[in-house]
Amino acid sequence: AIDGSRLWQSLMDLAQLGATAKGGVCRLALTELDGKARDLFAAWCRAEGCSIRIDQIGNIFARRAGTRDDLPAIATGSHIDTQPTGGKFDGNYGVMAGLEVIRTLNQHNIRTEAPIEVCVWTNEEGSRFVPVMMGSGVYVDAFTLDHALSRADHDGITVARALADIGYAGDAPASVSAGAPRFGAYFEAHIEQGPVLEDADTTIGVVTGALGQRWYDVTVTGMESHAGPTPMRLRKDALFAATHLMQKVVEIALAHQPDGRGTVGCVHVYPNSRNVIPGKVSFTVDFRHGNDDGLLAMDAALRAAAELLQKDFPVSVAVEQVVYFEPVAFAPELVDAIRGGAERAGCSHLDIVSGAGHDAVYVAGTAPTAMIFVPCKDGISHNEIEDADPEHLAAGANVLLHAMLARAGT
Amino acid sequence: AIDGSRLWQSLMDLAQLGATAKGGVCRLALTELDGKARDLFAAWCRAEGCSIRIDQIGNIFARRAGTRDDLPAIATGSHIDTQPTGGKFDGNYGVMAGLEVIRTLNQHNIRTEAPIEVCVWTNEEGSRFVPVMMGSGVYVDAFTLDHALSRADHDGITVARALADIGYAGDAPASVSAGAPRFGAYFEAHIEQGPVLEDADTTIGVVTGALGQRWYDVTVTGMESHAGPTPMRLRKDALFAATHLMQKVVEIALAHQPDGRGTVGCVHVYPNSRNVIPGKVSFTVDFRHGNDDGLLAMDAALRAAAELLQKDFPVSVAVEQVVYFEPVAFAPELVDAIRGGAERAGCSHLDIVSGAGHDAVYVAGTAPTAMIFVPCKDGISHNEIEDADPEHLAAGANVLLHAMLARAGT
Ligand SMILES: NC(=O)NCCC(=O)O
Ligand SMILES: NC(=O)NCCC(=O)O
Repeated sequence: AIDGSRLWQSLMDLAQLGATAKGGVCRLALTELDGKARDLFAAWCRAEGCSIRIDQIGNIFARRAGTRDDLPAIATGSHIDTQPTGGKFDGNYGVMAGLEVIRTLNQHNIRTEAPIEVCVWTNEEGSRFVPVMMGSGVYVDAFTLDHALSRADHDGITVARALADIGYAGDAPASVSAGAPRFGAYFEAHIEQGPVLEDADTTIGVVTGALGQRWYDVTVTGMESHAGPTPMRLRKDALFAATHLMQKVVEIALAHQPDGRGTVGCVHVYPNSRNVIPGKVSFTVDFRHGNDDGLLAMDAALRAAAELLQKDFPVSVAVEQVVYFEPVAFAPELVDAIRGGAERAGCSHLDIVSGAGHDAVYVAGTAPTAMIFVPCKDGISHNEIEDADPEHLAAGANVLLHAMLARAGT
Repeated sequence: AIDGSRLWQSLMDLAQLGATAKGGVCRLALTELDGKARDLFAAWCRAEGCSIRIDQIGNIFARRAGTRDDLPAIATGSHIDTQPTGGKFDGNYGVMAGLEVIRTLNQHNIRTEAPIEVCVWTNEEGSRFVPVMMGSGVYVDAFTLDHALSRADHDGITVARALADIGYAGDAPASVSAGAPRFGAYFEAHIEQGPVLEDADTTIGVVTGALGQRWYDVTVTGMESHAGPTPMRLRKDALFAATHLMQKVVEIALAHQPDGRGTVGCVHVYPNSRNVIPGKVSFTVDFRHGNDDGLLAMDAALRAAAELLQKDFPVSVAVEQVVYFEPVAFAPELVDAIRGGAERAGCSHLDIVSGAGHDAVYVAGTAPTAMIFVPCKDGISHNEIEDADPEHLAAGANVLLHAMLARAGT
């Protein structure tokens, strides 16, 4: 069994780098702080006898040799960059759980057949550089290395430059198509970032896959005019019309339960003045669903509602899809291994679908993959008050240890 | 009859000061440009033999003597400050129409019994300094002179300082309570700033009064959480709830026709991120109605809807009233004079209620008052493309001339 207090201590040590006054962490991708956190991780791994490989997008792979190094590595990991108002656990937990697996294997002198690798994926959060999940996206050829390296932050600093500045512009090939090795299996432990496990009073989420995502920009155009002299009957109120479509987004998701999700997160009203009837409203839609038929049905319902809106109100409506992630089913044999591990460890568990994107969702395109969720307090993440129970974190790392051991062979 | 092309020329000359590339005017209150426009107006009036009086809040009164200077003046006017993206006619028309009345009286050697005054009220727009309608507000004691003088713009420049800088810190008493003279009657000609006259193909709006106004700040608080991992049933989506209350604002106005008006003009969503369920939404409400019973019924309906929202959705709601203007009925004898003037001039006319606040609405508390509206193109105002038909502007000035003559006596 892993050492829960050692795991907790590593998390707390790592959280010192970029610690915020409110108890969170601000450690944006490829900043000096991210560099220091990477150095600390690499030093810890070297102390455990691991070799370190850095690829051209800065992904780090800490490798513990197996008895048969010809076998593909059994890997785990996550990310250690954070949101600007991030917490101590998002991403960091998956990496520290991987380190704890290696420490436990060393402590008990366990040799595995396949090598074990712990990955740190570059820029998962996407707060400083877009796109999100950049390191794992390059790895699976979701976009090119050149595209990723040439992205710039708000100050014009490119990913290539930032990698060089912190000493993490590696030379190992970054993408599977360029020769980066595929894993024998990939596991990722992560806090749930949602309320389901806590709501069900359950310790382990056995993640069976990830919801597909379709994101949209919607613009409703009417005519701005003065709120005083314009009678109701002569208005083209873009906001009044838009509120009906915003409600549809939620109603469409409710019509696609259990796992349909619909969110309007971002709204801009023009000119946004107290006594001016809005002439234009733009808002975002985030649809998620477990299978693409469901997602397509939600897409069709949104477009039909937008059409109808143009008939019912004196406005025009434009709907543009801006992001698509396909739904992913994780490898059944790995999911079973995690469920079995939770049962052997005597942990309560629940099958769950990841509502959010994770590096594992990309990696699943190149290797058998699964994830382990543990509860986080009040389901809160991307927030400095993000919190998790040390016992839950330890339980998740134990399940990870046993699932990895089962795949790596002894 | 007034000289329509002279009136038009004065409007175009004045619009040079602060002319924008898009054909509008940007001449914020008490800026150097406003100073130049005031100087131009004063020079034009002095050339017509008027005396100029400037009060302590910078209101300008150009006076044409009557045969009986013991009588209270028959006054007209408006404002010459503009919105940042303002037009050539809003306010400026009322002042230039007053100047045109004086020029016409001089041209035809008409002596009136009562003196005639043309007023330029300070900072009607409220774009640079809050509150709006500052000069007329001080005049009627809606707030104190000291309060107005101490207001500051975004750069910290106070009204007192800005008045001194452009040479318009006068010494005449600014408020009726401090001895500023009351008028025998006050007329204000203004573009409608709405679509009603154009929609009815009518030249003259006989303004019978102004709608009362109640403005509110509404805040709906739920709980922000991640749009992916949070199932629909565990959400506290502040925006989904808020859209229902925003729709109520419009529905309440529709239930109070013909003159109830309800507008949500300004919306802020927190944290306003694509994949975060909104935790807080604040929005503004602008209610208008012709009588206070109607306005109070709308107020009660809004508060009841807010209460109900807290029962129907997992959110809390706060409603705070931030502005109140009482409904105003203009003086029936002046309204009749305007209607009669329009009929004698052979102009189509329509009784109309001002949906917007104007200096006249304040002045009405101290003297018999009425307004004359003329159409503006597409009902558009507070916009650089604001436009009006020269013939309509001339017709309005003629109606003003005859109404003022009737009150001033010859
Ligand atoms: N884990 C996570 O926050 N991913 C961001 C992309 C998403 O919204 O799913
Ligand atoms: N005339 C005008 O735009 N007044 C501003 C205040 C209002 O919204 O009525």
